[in-house]
Amino acid sequence: MKTCLDCFPCFLNQTLNVAKIITDDKKIHHEIMTGVMGKLLNISFDMSPPEVSQIVYSTISEITKIKDPYFKEKKEQNRRAMELYQELKEKINNSEAPLFLAARVAIAGNIIDLGINRKMGDVKTEIFSALDSPITINDFSKFEENLQQSKQILYLGDNAGEIVFDKLFIEEIKKKKNPRVIFVVRGGPIINDATMDDAKFAGMEEVAEVMGNGFNAPGTILSKTSSIISDLFTKSDMVISKGQGNYESLSEEQKNIFFLLKAKCQIVAKELDVNVGDAIFKHQHQEGRSQDSI
Amino acid sequence: MKTCLDCFPCFLNQTLNVAKIITDDKKIHHEIMTGVMGKLLNISFDMSPPEVSQIVYSTISEITKIKDPYFKEKKEQNRRAMELYQELKEKINNSEAPLFLAARVAIAGNIIDLGINRKMGDVKTEIFSALDSPITINDFSKFEENLQQSKQILYLGDNAGEIVFDKLFIEEIKKKKNPRVIFVVRGGPIINDATMDDAKFAGMEEVAEVMGNGFNAPGTILSKTSSIISDLFTKSDMVISKGQGNYESLSEEQKNIFFLLKAKCQIVAKELDVNVGDAIFKHQHQEGRSQDSI
Repeated sequence: MKTCLDCFPCFLNQTLNVAKIITDDKKIHHEIMTGVMGKLLNISFDMSPPEVSQIVYSTISEITKIKDPYFKEKKEQNRRAMELYQELKEKINNSEAPLFLAARVAIAGNIIDLGINRKMGDVKTEIFSALDSPITINDFSKFEENLQQSKQILYLGDNAGEIVFDKLFIEEIKKKKNPRVIFVVRGGPIINDATMDDAKFAGMEEVAEVMGNGFNAPGTILSKTSSIISDLFTKSDMVISKGQGNYESLSEEQKNIFFLLKAKCQIVAKELDVNVGDAIFKHQHQEGRSQDSI
Repeated sequence: MKTCLDCFPCFLNQTLNVAKIITDDKKIHHEIMTGVMGKLLNISFDMSPPEVSQIVYSTISEITKIKDPYFKEKKEQNRRAMELYQELKEKINNSEAPLFLAARVAIAGNIIDLGINRKMGDVKTEIFSALDSPITINDFSKFEENLQQSKQILYLGDNAGEIVFDKLFIEEIKKKKNPRVIFVVRGGPIINDATMDDAKFAGMEEVAEVMGNGFNAPGTILSKTSSIISDLFTKSDMVISKGQGNYESLSEEQKNIFFLLKAKCQIVAKELDVNVGDAIFKHQHQEGRSQDSI
């Protein structure tokens, strides 16, 4: 999907948030905000929001010389998610529909905000309550069918912390026909998105081949990722795409994709015909965008 | 209070909202947004938010040649408020503390959003429920004391519709020592703020002298209002200031002011040490900003 003007206030909110994380110096906040506004004045609306977002965060990095302002927060997100791993694993093992429950866990991982200001108890409550909440667009049965025929799956990760829950889902996927799974992380730090370090911390290589995509956008911009990743995207039988950023950047691709995400803003919610906050497990047909579940 | 960078995303949200009211043409939306962003890049942070807001809305008017995009909505706000007048009047007359209830009605008028998309029943429910809700900063007793000594009151209005509830409050004020009350409206159209036409529709001249302030900011910028208004501000015994815009533009004035408002954004709520949505009846001491109620 394309960037729209409604994204602008959101980009500026994000910019100010990260500026405040980096420094208390209001002069630098001002320099960052005007720098980003200057860039936004000249962006092309043919780009997807994650592509513009990459420009926004790169501008912030250029001004502040800080490449990874969310470094500490990501560590905390990983740590908190790992604390829930074993309990969720047992819950999945004891379930009558372990694959579906593991998928819900993976979506829940995108639903919760593992921000450092929340208490561990709250995060746990949120995850477990998300597991019982409805999935607004639910194409799980199609996913099960597709899985039977998929020998190679490209799994596009989203955030730090969240990838621990993705690992639980991949463990269940592997139990079916043991497909090859390639788990993709961002090519460099961008917001709280998972990179190679986060995948290592989560032990992702125990269940999948892990690859960086060669670009630090908060989505998957196929024209900017490494050719290995764009080739794998084309050749894999199925793509599992986690999170809103990957949805925004791949929603127009003609490919067999399952989008697992929480709709986090009005624009994406409107595009999906759901409410903000809704959980989504949406199939995209190989020949283009699916209309069967919206 | 001064404008801060947190106001920028809010200004852009407002800009896009009004752009969408004016036209469906996305090219014009883009022209408006970039025009406003260009202006924001060069504003002085010594200005209050309403002063910047005046620049924002003037820029929109310059680009679109539309001077009053909220014209229809204001008419509707007035009409809906007038439908509640008689019922609220009776409620006040039957009250054991009519002046306090009338003050609550005036604050409630600022609390509700009389947007045209809401049903009349909802608006009524909101107003009546606001009358029973707590006032977080409540300096009413100081207001009663001050009223005893006030021969001339400058009453600074805020929105269309809301002024009908101000009229009910002024009616009770006049019953006390019958002070001279000058009701001030904006000097020209700005957002949904009340102008002379709205005051006429509400019959404000039955209870007060009505004056335009000579400037179309969504607040009271004393350096920009007509000299009559700035003189009246200095010479009146008491100022009653309605709404967040008037608070933002007058919070640093050394004057006997009572601010009646709903805190509508995080920045103002933080300054007042309250939550967003809280109802406020705050006294400002003549010698400067009051610390006694926060």
